[in-house]
Amino acid sequence: IIFSMGKHGGAKTKTTVCLSDGVIFLAGAFMSLILVWSYFSIFSPSSNYSLTGLRGDGGPIKCSGLDMQFDPPDSGFYDDPDLSYSIEKSVTGWDEKRKRWLELHPSFKPGSENRIVMVTGSQSTPCKNPIGDHLLLRCFKNKVDYCRIHGHDIFYSNSLLHPKMNSYWAKLPVVKAAMLAHPEAEWIWWVDSDAIFTDMEFTPPLHRYRYHNLVVHGWANIIYDKQSWTALNAGVFLIRNCQWSMELIDTWKSMGPVSPDYAKWGPIQRSIFKDKLFPESDDQTALIYLLYKHKEVYYPKIYLEGEYYLQGYWIGVVGGLANVTERYLEMERDDATLRRRHAEKVSERYGAFREERFLRGEFGGRGSRRRAFVTHFTGCQPCSGDHNPIYDGDTCWKEMIRALNFADNQVMRTYGYVHSDLSKTSPLQPVPFDYPDEPW
Amino acid sequence: IIFSMGKHGGAKTKTTVCLSDGVIFLAGAFMSLILVWSYFSIFSPSSNYSLTGLRGDGGPIKCSGLDMQFDPPDSGFYDDPDLSYSIEKSVTGWDEKRKRWLELHPSFKPGSENRIVMVTGSQSTPCKNPIGDHLLLRCFKNKVDYCRIHGHDIFYSNSLLHPKMNSYWAKLPVVKAAMLAHPEAEWIWWVDSDAIFTDMEFTPPLHRYRYHNLVVHGWANIIYDKQSWTALNAGVFLIRNCQWSMELIDTWKSMGPVSPDYAKWGPIQRSIFKDKLFPESDDQTALIYLLYKHKEVYYPKIYLEGEYYLQGYWIGVVGGLANVTERYLEMERDDATLRRRHAEKVSERYGAFREERFLRGEFGGRGSRRRAFVTHFTGCQPCSGDHNPIYDGDTCWKEMIRALNFADNQVMRTYGYVHSDLSKTSPLQPVPFDYPDEPW
Repeated sequence: IIFSMGKHGGAKTKTTVCLSDGVIFLAGAFMSLILVWSYFSIFSPSSNYSLTGLRGDGGPIKCSGLDMQFDPPDSGFYDDPDLSYSIEKSVTGWDEKRKRWLELHPSFKPGSENRIVMVTGSQSTPCKNPIGDHLLLRCFKNKVDYCRIHGHDIFYSNSLLHPKMNSYWAKLPVVKAAMLAHPEAEWIWWVDSDAIFTDMEFTPPLHRYRYHNLVVHGWANIIYDKQSWTALNAGVFLIRNCQWSMELIDTWKSMGPVSPDYAKWGPIQRSIFKDKLFPESDDQTALIYLLYKHKEVYYPKIYLEGEYYLQGYWIGVVGGLANVTERYLEMERDDATLRRRHAEKVSERYGAFREERFLRGEFGGRGSRRRAFVTHFTGCQPCSGDHNPIYDGDTCWKEMIRALNFADNQVMRTYGYVHSDLSKTSPLQPVPFDYPDEPW
Repeated sequence: IIFSMGKHGGAKTKTTVCLSDGVIFLAGAFMSLILVWSYFSIFSPSSNYSLTGLRGDGGPIKCSGLDMQFDPPDSGFYDDPDLSYSIEKSVTGWDEKRKRWLELHPSFKPGSENRIVMVTGSQSTPCKNPIGDHLLLRCFKNKVDYCRIHGHDIFYSNSLLHPKMNSYWAKLPVVKAAMLAHPEAEWIWWVDSDAIFTDMEFTPPLHRYRYHNLVVHGWANIIYDKQSWTALNAGVFLIRNCQWSMELIDTWKSMGPVSPDYAKWGPIQRSIFKDKLFPESDDQTALIYLLYKHKEVYYPKIYLEGEYYLQGYWIGVVGGLANVTERYLEMERDDATLRRRHAEKVSERYGAFREERFLRGEFGGRGSRRRAFVTHFTGCQPCSGDHNPIYDGDTCWKEMIRALNFADNQVMRTYGYVHSDLSKTSPLQPVPFDYPDEPW
């Protein structure tokens, strides 16, 4: 009788039994023993939630999610003196390095193919605009709420990582550092400080991006036919944590202040994209330039998302907030499932239900039944207050607060409260049971 | 005859039975079928990292942490119309209700005994103090950093949940709502907006609190011998998500503005705690009052933590920030493990190492080698700016920024950067490989 049995999971269980008539009893007993043993090893109190896999050190993976206390001694990219976080140095072979890290940290593998770390930030000093920091605080709370509901980590940067890479260029060094600090994440999601999540349920359709490495809101025809610097918006993007992205950032940043050729890029960009606002090279036009000039290289890997508001221009959104509130309450009156109270941690289940029941195939954007996913207060410049002269500053601040409360209503429902009026932040109103079915 | 079951969630099971007799063949087949059944029920193909346990609906638990899309139809406390989030209504039988929720959501069970949700917040309107909201934003970032490193959820409240429960009373309705919205959490950790985590590695010794339901920084002798309203600080506390805490909050709030007897409680508190600042009843004195008047009821369940700075008065901390930086760099020069770069997600492993190697048995507090865990800028009132006249406002803001950068240095190390000077937020300085072993 040959008998070998390893640990469950990732492990093999092989049983070979060759018997003659004489030992049928033994065979039965033996099989039963295997059954008993396997059940015991699986349901024994000690290994209550042990994962079916082996960890680097041979012990079972704790199933309480991620093993944050385990970092094996095996040498990895962090131990390589030549690997630098700096925007000025290139990273090579990142895909293999990340892959190896995940192999050495198997508890991070489940879900790693879709894991997102959100990155945002703002300036290091107080805002010139008196209400600026208050709005930044609330915009950050809004992002933290979205990330908590969907289980994403979020990192806020309020310092320059490179003295020359400031204003709209500051995000590139931060995104690169985040990629290196978070090998467990497949996507880094940059979101400008003045972009607000106005649909707390919606989740980006990552499967749609499986062959792409950068996802940004934009339109190909406006890049290639109209040559406008607003053909896409670089204030919100998903970038895959891979070697391709490392190289994109290298090329991208070579048009920025850190590059010796910085000065020449402004005029080049303007010569092609005539409506470009600033004389100096900016990150958004730089990205459009790459797509325009090297379409064959970049277009296949950059997904221009236009089917929903990965970021939506606030002017087109805020006017509809009241109507869309009514539309969503209507869905909730239609179906008791959407009225069911629940733990915040399982909110995704109800978002998925609404998607399935009411929003299937519904595109986002103007006139859609969908709420805008992200409302971007482009041009409002809440911190400096130097908003685009075409609108009144007070309108910016007033509408930002309405958008923030609109989003907060979706969050506070699970805490038992709502804002009775989108312009009114406090106090909140208790939500009656089975709201909105029962009359308020 | 070969029964091959193929791949079942990373586990391979192969059973080969070579038998010479028909009956034995049937026996083997039967046994193998049981094996097939048993393994199949455990490693279903659908669940890659399937957990060795059964979910409410009979399916396997996904091991990619928490199953945030699963909420079974089984009726629970959320479906009870009489359960209210309001501070004015009592919750009964909460322990059973929470236990039942966890049973219906088994993916949340692993780690539930120590799961923490941090709750903080500030006023709903812009601060009077021009630098106020900037400081609040940075204090929130500091808490989000701590929670990201340790895997806690964090919720920021900037609206009153009850119009009468304002200022220092506002936290009670929020804490209660968070308890109900987060049945997956064993602890709700309230942290005032002006409290800053200055040791990003330290984790509260929860095992020490296993027989207690409320943990707050304070000293028994000062309650019972000195009757001072500063015998504990209610700005930072861990409260267990259990029925006892629900009842404590009911009793606690009955001394607050929501109570018809509110007016009488101020004088009562002052008659016992002579040094109390405000004439009106406040949450901190109210808690001390309960401990003082009903020692037998509350003292056994309230842990007064004085062995480390669960919250430390900033005046006693900020002067030592430079020295403590040096002491910690010294530890890092002493041991290469502390200099090893790593993913942020496994930072806890290095914190645990430092604890074991250098800080074992080291109490926190004045003169300790330990960094203060939490530095609380009590009396600075960063938002209103109405700081305690005994100190200069500018000192408050300057020291808050130094404390924030001191903490940020511990965070940004894993992103490759540090603040070269605690007073300087930006730009950051790249960290050389093997820092601080190599000369800067």
